[in-house]
Amino acid sequence: MQPKVTLYIAASLDGYIARPDGGIDWLRMVERPGEDYGYAAFYGSVDGVISGSKTFELARGFEPWPYAGKPCYVFSARPLDGARDDVIAAGRDIAAGMATIRARGHSHLWLVGGGALINSFQRAGLIDEYIVSTIPILLGAGIPLFPPPGIEQELKLLSCKHYESGLTQNHYRRI
Amino acid sequence: MQPKVTLYIAASLDGYIARPDGGIDWLRMVERPGEDYGYAAFYGSVDGVISGSKTFELARGFEPWPYAGKPCYVFSARPLDGARDDVIAAGRDIAAGMATIRARGHSHLWLVGGGALINSFQRAGLIDEYIVSTIPILLGAGIPLFPPPGIEQELKLLSCKHYESGLTQNHYRRI
Repeated sequence: MQPKVTLYIAASLDGYIARPDGGIDWLRMVERPGEDYGYAAFYGSVDGVISGSKTFELARGFEPWPYAGKPCYVFSARPLDGARDDVIAAGRDIAAGMATIRARGHSHLWLVGGGALINSFQRAGLIDEYIVSTIPILLGAGIPLFPPPGIEQELKLLSCKHYESGLTQNHYRRI
Repeated sequence: MQPKVTLYIAASLDGYIARPDGGIDWLRMVERPGEDYGYAAFYGSVDGVISGSKTFELARGFEPWPYAGKPCYVFSARPLDGARDDVIAAGRDIAAGMATIRARGHSHLWLVGGGALINSFQRAGLIDEYIVSTIPILLGAGIPLFPPPGIEQELKLLSCKHYESGLTQNHYRRI
């Protein structure tokens, strides 16, 4: 069975997932005690995580490790530094890597990012659902969520939520 | 009095206001009989329109003229071709042009676009409110709503609406 792949990510109103230097300090503006914006429920729904190499290197610096209990597949042209047992190098070829991942019987995978991997997955038609949280800020510059060129894709809106912090969250399925 | 300037615009989920060739055919996917997504109410709330030269040239081809009953200020380095009595050349300098516009006693102006003018206004700190409709489509390439570099700007979410067509509309005020 083909696992569902969901891009679950936050971006600024001008479409950046990080500052030019990779900084995500601005995400703190929507931190509210007791509000996780559906994160725990979403994380509970996936049985694996897919990451690019730079995003993995960022995550590796987090304490605790953010993808506990789920295998984390990392697409990277270079060897993974500081890997763990639950971190699996998926190579650099998306099609081959996804074949390996599918063979492990997953049902729902979280595509974490970053922009380059999202672009590769989108161009390969591999993203089934998009859950995009929009943070109420213009950054002015940064790492784009959807770096061009991508492919055209019509979407169906499944839900649209908004929160007191000003975060809005749109959930789409590709048509 | 300083008039309020509102950017009211539609963009694809990947942040484009038009295809690379300026095409806006994809906006038709959210056309629904009897649903204007608040446009008439918004248009009734403004007493003038601000446009860049390319956006003006696009609008000039529409029949009927889309900005009836409101003065339309066009920022352009070149003379306006096919201008009307209610179309006023505002020059190419944003500060000087806005001084002229302010002197005419407006209270609420609609910044129509396009991307280059939005960028100039945003960098000059001249956009008070943002009403951004997100169309449920990824275009993959096009004319960006917020071309970099802009300036950082925190926003307050005033409302978030969603519609059966999948269009969502976020209304922000700058903080």
